[in-house]
Amino acid sequence: MAAFAETPDPPYYAVIFTRLASTDAAGYAEAADRMVELAARQPGFLGVESTSDDVGVGITVSYWETEDAIAAWKSDVEHTATRDTGRARWYDGYELRVARVERAYNWRR
Amino acid sequence: MAAFAETPDPPYYAVIFTRLASTDAAGYAEAADRMVELAARQPGFLGVESTSDDVGVGITVSYWETEDAIAAWKSDVEHTATRDTGRARWYDGYELRVARVERAYNWRR
Repeated sequence: MAAFAETPDPPYYAVIFTRLASTDAAGYAEAADRMVELAARQPGFLGVESTSDDVGVGITVSYWETEDAIAAWKSDVEHTATRDTGRARWYDGYELRVARVERAYNWRR
Repeated sequence: MAAFAETPDPPYYAVIFTRLASTDAAGYAEAADRMVELAARQPGFLGVESTSDDVGVGITVSYWETEDAIAAWKSDVEHTATRDTGRARWYDGYELRVARVERAYNWRR
């Protein structure tokens, strides 16, 4: 995955997902890749940025054109099943925040 | 740092900072710790979540009560100097987005 999402001028929406991994990582990487693949096919998807460290803290921020696009992705059947598996196995906890991006800046060397 | 920021009920603001590290990491970790320490003393600071991987992609999300609090932190003298050092040495690129958090959910095992 590229480090940066190439997003349009604001406004657009961000879903900020911060997770703490459990000790059970079996199948997680494949499921995470699959969710990115599936999200990228959703109408209104703008991009995603994601990283995680070796103690299990991960942050994934996905970007969306509208709140309706986020709602549709939330209710996707495969996404819903994977979220359930995440709570059952892969996560010790998470925070999910939906935010409206109002200003954006970037810099490259 | 704790994995999760304990934020109040929305609305509040998020600053999403996604960075790609350069090959020069000298002094970076100390400066990052210092910035968190300094941010935490700012009026309106609500918390921070941060993680990074071993290929240099990092995401830090800081949370703030108001846009004015973000503007004050942006203009902090030591913060400004550290941003300049970041561009000169530590980063190959970054994206910074300011967003208004409208909804939040969390889950713990």
